[in-house]
Amino acid sequence: MSKLDYGFNIPALKGMKLEEIQTPCLLIDYEIFKLNVEKMGSFTHENNIKLRPHAKMHKSVEVAKYQLQYGNASGICCQKLSEAEVFVKSGIKDILITNQITDLKKIDRLCKINRSGTKVTCCVDNIDNLNDINNIASDNNVKIEIFIELECGAQRCGTDNIDDIKLMIQFINKSSNIKLSGFQAYNGSYQHVLDSKERETTVNDTNKRISNLLKYFDMSNLIVTGGGTGCFEEETKSKIYNEIQVGSYAFMDAHYSSLKKNKSNILFENSLFIYTSVISVAKQNFAVVDAGLKSMSVDSGLPKIFNKNDLKYTKCSDEHGIIEDYNNSLKLNDKLKLIPGHCDPTCNLHDWYVVIDKNRKVKDLWKVSARGFSF
Amino acid sequence: MSKLDYGFNIPALKGMKLEEIQTPCLLIDYEIFKLNVEKMGSFTHENNIKLRPHAKMHKSVEVAKYQLQYGNASGICCQKLSEAEVFVKSGIKDILITNQITDLKKIDRLCKINRSGTKVTCCVDNIDNLNDINNIASDNNVKIEIFIELECGAQRCGTDNIDDIKLMIQFINKSSNIKLSGFQAYNGSYQHVLDSKERETTVNDTNKRISNLLKYFDMSNLIVTGGGTGCFEEETKSKIYNEIQVGSYAFMDAHYSSLKKNKSNILFENSLFIYTSVISVAKQNFAVVDAGLKSMSVDSGLPKIFNKNDLKYTKCSDEHGIIEDYNNSLKLNDKLKLIPGHCDPTCNLHDWYVVIDKNRKVKDLWKVSARGFSF
Repeated sequence: MSKLDYGFNIPALKGMKLEEIQTPCLLIDYEIFKLNVEKMGSFTHENNIKLRPHAKMHKSVEVAKYQLQYGNASGICCQKLSEAEVFVKSGIKDILITNQITDLKKIDRLCKINRSGTKVTCCVDNIDNLNDINNIASDNNVKIEIFIELECGAQRCGTDNIDDIKLMIQFINKSSNIKLSGFQAYNGSYQHVLDSKERETTVNDTNKRISNLLKYFDMSNLIVTGGGTGCFEEETKSKIYNEIQVGSYAFMDAHYSSLKKNKSNILFENSLFIYTSVISVAKQNFAVVDAGLKSMSVDSGLPKIFNKNDLKYTKCSDEHGIIEDYNNSLKLNDKLKLIPGHCDPTCNLHDWYVVIDKNRKVKDLWKVSARGFSF
Repeated sequence: MSKLDYGFNIPALKGMKLEEIQTPCLLIDYEIFKLNVEKMGSFTHENNIKLRPHAKMHKSVEVAKYQLQYGNASGICCQKLSEAEVFVKSGIKDILITNQITDLKKIDRLCKINRSGTKVTCCVDNIDNLNDINNIASDNNVKIEIFIELECGAQRCGTDNIDDIKLMIQFINKSSNIKLSGFQAYNGSYQHVLDSKERETTVNDTNKRISNLLKYFDMSNLIVTGGGTGCFEEETKSKIYNEIQVGSYAFMDAHYSSLKKNKSNILFENSLFIYTSVISVAKQNFAVVDAGLKSMSVDSGLPKIFNKNDLKYTKCSDEHGIIEDYNNSLKLNDKLKLIPGHCDPTCNLHDWYVVIDKNRKVKDLWKVSARGFSF
């Protein structure tokens, strides 16, 4: 940190008061974050299911290591190879890339990581890709563990074609440098259904479909991994999954917070905020803040304003946010905490998390270590 | 570059063939970029209007210096102080921050930059802010030039209240450490109207409104600055503006390319692309590519696929893009060039531009130097 300059390339210094932090930036409320991580840790411990939190959400070595040390995590997930490499370099030894690695140079990098002693597995949905991985693993004299990805309804990667899956398993069994670890079954769409009853029904339907698919295969020693913050309880109950890949639970966002939950559900609170300042009050009924599209992703809706029911974030441009303020209560340089609509692509815009303790002081700065590592 | 690792934290190496580049990443077609920069250079030269391109769009020292050297630019614009500081550190000596600097620590940083010999001006729409700037400039023994921001219809910062503007000018005139440079009048909304006739009418209405406002003030020695890629020709014709702040013209994007233009307009071509690879063909009629929300902003719509009319980018999640491919023509590892919906927040997601020459080889890597500098 010695070469970094407060206000220019870091938003705060340790020990600083909340009010002195430069905006816009990301805040983590440490006490709430800690509680969220503990809740998921206890849940997975009590239900005897492995927890592999998704690091694509936070992209931070500090957060991942906290989850591994205090949150019952047994490894992490990543989404891209370069992202995984950030965590490999930090010393984390067990990573599942929940995505396809198809580029030949990337497969070679994957093999070299595994050869050096860090286990990095990936997903596959294509037999040519399996062939490439086996050949390049053979060149590197290493065995790569893979998960076959099942289609869960998101219409992204993965297949539910039994014949294709059988062919892939046959291919793996006769190949010397790849090994089947299990199945990736991430329900990426239905877990976002807002109504709890409707969400439960659709998620359970997916779980049944996955269960029926799996009946065709010998499941001894095979892992089924999947599950997000919106549906991990249903997936755990289903007894199909050995491992869940939740990410957002540690921070939460406006979208996940708007999911209606059943009484029996674990509730997580927002620990992540965008800290923003008022830079213009030139107009009646509106104020302008300094956090726009370059500080938050609006793909899942505009941010909510924390603890201020009379204010509403109504419009977002590149570097401006418009706040409806019919009481004209906001003054120049007033600061607001925004709850981002979608935490993953919002975190990816920033270089730092400013971690706030219970005394509203800066406890630490955590780097968004893998920001931009998308190749 | 010696510490950077191809495929991990840089997407390409100089001299490399297009096919060897790691995806997803940003590409610049150098020949088209050059032509765009030259066209705007010639236009501003012929029309005797100053050109101050907006660096918030590209956030790159290399691009800014190219525009200053070859594109008739006389300075640059920035949107945030930390962003401007990146360009100050690169040696650029004349920067207009087209935004409000209200935080006291930021004002102090602004004063210290000006004291060190680089001219950085900013916008103001509030008398308390003027007072803060004057006081802190006085403490730093420096004079700060400012632009009063006029409201142009975007309902962001700025005012069109004559009395407020008069009070601000009076305040500036009696203050020893601030000086009025002129007016910021950026038409940030109407320039995006798709229909050329309708856009021309609304932009001309704004220009008239600005012109009427300006009649109340002695305009000798005052500059009017504004104008974007969608309307700079109308603003130049209006004779109100002394300077235009266009940004997107150098790269263009799917949104700006969809604006209908008149015969007399200068046309710019897309020089910026997101380079992406197919990672899954497991489903009929669809392929999955590796560029999603963390590689592009979708606030102005999904990307277009360059030169492939039979393919359509239909859905975007964090790290996946779904490509409609009814001919099932795409194969694993095929590469596509996407035209981003909105270039500014897309560039801000990446660390590098891979500059491609006319032989489809990597001419250079340019850093997105001010990516994430939003405070």
